[in-house]
Amino acid sequence: MNSEATEERVLEAVRQRRELVNEALDEDIPLEEPERLYEATRYLLQAGGKRLRPTVTLLAAEALADVEPLSTDYRAFPTLDSREIDVMTAAASIEVIQSFTLIHDDIMDDDDLRRGVPAVHKEYDTETAILAGDTLYAKAFELMTHTGADPENGLEAVRMLATTCTQICEGQALDVEFERRTEVLPDEYLEMIELKTAVLYGAAAATAGVLMGAGEDVVEALYRYGIDSGCAFQIQDDVLDLTVPSEKLGKQRGSDLVENKETIITLHARQQGVDVDSLLDASGVEDVTEEAVEEAVAELDDAGSIDFAREKAHELTDRAKDHLEVLPDNEARSLLRDIADYLITRGY
Amino acid sequence: MNSEATEERVLEAVRQRRELVNEALDEDIPLEEPERLYEATRYLLQAGGKRLRPTVTLLAAEALADVEPLSTDYRAFPTLDSREIDVMTAAASIEVIQSFTLIHDDIMDDDDLRRGVPAVHKEYDTETAILAGDTLYAKAFELMTHTGADPENGLEAVRMLATTCTQICEGQALDVEFERRTEVLPDEYLEMIELKTAVLYGAAAATAGVLMGAGEDVVEALYRYGIDSGCAFQIQDDVLDLTVPSEKLGKQRGSDLVENKETIITLHARQQGVDVDSLLDASGVEDVTEEAVEEAVAELDDAGSIDFAREKAHELTDRAKDHLEVLPDNEARSLLRDIADYLITRGY
Repeated sequence: MNSEATEERVLEAVRQRRELVNEALDEDIPLEEPERLYEATRYLLQAGGKRLRPTVTLLAAEALADVEPLSTDYRAFPTLDSREIDVMTAAASIEVIQSFTLIHDDIMDDDDLRRGVPAVHKEYDTETAILAGDTLYAKAFELMTHTGADPENGLEAVRMLATTCTQICEGQALDVEFERRTEVLPDEYLEMIELKTAVLYGAAAATAGVLMGAGEDVVEALYRYGIDSGCAFQIQDDVLDLTVPSEKLGKQRGSDLVENKETIITLHARQQGVDVDSLLDASGVEDVTEEAVEEAVAELDDAGSIDFAREKAHELTDRAKDHLEVLPDNEARSLLRDIADYLITRGY
Repeated sequence: MNSEATEERVLEAVRQRRELVNEALDEDIPLEEPERLYEATRYLLQAGGKRLRPTVTLLAAEALADVEPLSTDYRAFPTLDSREIDVMTAAASIEVIQSFTLIHDDIMDDDDLRRGVPAVHKEYDTETAILAGDTLYAKAFELMTHTGADPENGLEAVRMLATTCTQICEGQALDVEFERRTEVLPDEYLEMIELKTAVLYGAAAATAGVLMGAGEDVVEALYRYGIDSGCAFQIQDDVLDLTVPSEKLGKQRGSDLVENKETIITLHARQQGVDVDSLLDASGVEDVTEEAVEEAVAELDDAGSIDFAREKAHELTDRAKDHLEVLPDNEARSLLRDIADYLITRGY
């Protein structure tokens, strides 16, 4: 299948599920009292987002149950032990965690914008944003206890969610630490993005297996699928930051370079002897010209660093798809494969 | 029993369990990588604290199991369904939640000191403090899945913890909202402290019942015990802020008045026609004199507002103790009664 057709198929599958996920989020995180707090908790959720992670959860459930995609009520979904569960609530829980991490990350990085709107701590204030994140955090765990799964499986899903959150914090701490370090090895970077970004994809996929009572090998394979495609996703983000025009990217092209943020690309370039610190001489994103970015990118390209990143992403994607072999061969599994491909072929 | 003897008995019971809780916290929240993150997560836990909440959990378990206090290994504790559970891990989970809320609250209130040492965001930085709180949050849920309880009970304990965290956030949001409001009713204030402070006492007590497989009525009674004594505890805090000398209090006496923080006392005084806003004319705690505080307190006292708070606290404590009647009549239950008394008789 060519990549354009794949992308179309993926976007359609994601769009269909996004609407259902959005409905679920609206139901599961209702506007309660105190109103300002709940407005802030719902604000970022309502600002959009592709809902890739919950889509992965829903597709993993469909693949495992071997049902026709979208043929089955996600709120009364058949498991492998013939019990019905609310897999949508689990998917919503994953998205709520993602939303909480974005709100707190934006405070820590003092980012102004998120999903095209002011970050929560800009729209409200830092206190409200901390609290909105904390509220979503609790709600995510609450939701995960309400899937109706076999209690042993439900408890295991909560445990996986908790471990995942710990790892996301560790990844964010490493990210901050790396900005202060003089040397970071590419493998250390990969470990950081696995923790910061990929584990939530891992949990998104594996949670479906856990709740449905799949065997350990299947759960592990789903988890690895999420980890590998999540890492590939992050590497592709790093590539896009350098290769996509600012208009399309929605932010300054090369912003990672301007902000001296190490990526797998700059770390590879350093190993090739490129003087990364002198690549872009700008004091901030307002300062930088397209020509300067162009030149910097050319130098990284000459060093083979962009290709290195692309190859790494491809390698991870191939591995991610291989993990899916344990699932029944069906349409949902095929869509999970396509999503892995899409994560590294998407243009922005 | 006279109140001095009660206090001694309580302090001894708390001290004995505190040592065990501290050991458990050290084991359950180990120093991992990234080191700076885990140092920050452990920093406040190691700074001290009475460990009242985990002590309540442990005593509730002992009362329910009807065992001699401290006679039974908390890590292999008998339940009512003849399974053994690690009730210490549940107690640690409650304390970890308390620690997380303090770290985030101190950021929100920009408080410099906590437990006599710099607040985490002062000792480290705001980013690290947000992340340390988030890490503890995840760890608390992780711990609660590791008690070895019947999975249905384990899941119920997680659900209670999640609901409790949501309520704590709601309480903190109300607290912030009240500072901006022109009028707050005493009942609204009581609802706020129930959410912000008392629900964690409720969860501390009830979690033992849930994990041990106690009936709904017992769980509910333990929960109400925690709620009522937790509210009494907070009201006593408000009284102490006005009535205890600064040296003993460890902070400026009357600081709530200086910071225009409404309490049940000021809200009652307003209803009596006292012009609370003019009671203390100081721009900050550095500014205030002992005489001015003395005069303000005398005015609140004349209005009957301090007595009103004391009576309210007594009423709540009596109710709290009544709830304990569902438990077997034993030494641990008697200590839980004493703790309720201690919470409103303690001098600081």
